[in-house]
Amino acid sequence: MDYFKDYRDYVGSKPEKFFKSTLFESDKILLGLNCLEPGQEQAVHAHGDQDKFYFVLEGVGEFTVGDTVQSASDGMTVWAPEDVDHGVRNVGDVRLVLLVGLAPAPGH
Amino acid sequence: MDYFKDYRDYVGSKPEKFFKSTLFESDKILLGLNCLEPGQEQAVHAHGDQDKFYFVLEGVGEFTVGDTVQSASDGMTVWAPEDVDHGVRNVGDVRLVLLVGLAPAPGH
Repeated sequence: MDYFKDYRDYVGSKPEKFFKSTLFESDKILLGLNCLEPGQEQAVHAHGDQDKFYFVLEGVGEFTVGDTVQSASDGMTVWAPEDVDHGVRNVGDVRLVLLVGLAPAPGH
Repeated sequence: MDYFKDYRDYVGSKPEKFFKSTLFESDKILLGLNCLEPGQEQAVHAHGDQDKFYFVLEGVGEFTVGDTVQSASDGMTVWAPEDVDHGVRNVGDVRLVLLVGLAPAPGH
């Protein structure tokens, strides 16, 4: 398999909903991208049995985690432990690109 | 807890060995940084029960994964599945900063 991937090859967009892609996946972890055009959002939700992180690669998002609402731009890591509500909205004027990890991977 | 962390607050160096720091940790995943000064290396090793990724934030590293040796700079993701030998050496002239995830976290 190819152990090396450039995240820029996995960026994309969808008009109707934010865009997801997968970089690597095993039973232990899913690593991928969430890409949100300006104004798009990932509705607040929670995972019952997964911890999740976002790492902001490009753009600026307004994140909700639990009772906290905070803007974060490139270089920020956002942690959403299992059972904690979380979501994000692109509040900038360029695409928001997030590296996202879910452990364990969904369905495992 | 604080769900938001700037990776730049967790960068550091040690003269004798590469520098590690932790951003977030649960039983499911350890997310942190590996920082290597020019010339420093993480010797090739393997994890028997963890999948690992590196995401290059700054600098350039020469990575070994299995039989593959490849240089990678910012924006590249490197995947090291369980039982696969991996390591990295800073072959550039600036600090190499890597976001690193291990799932599940060591000791869990």
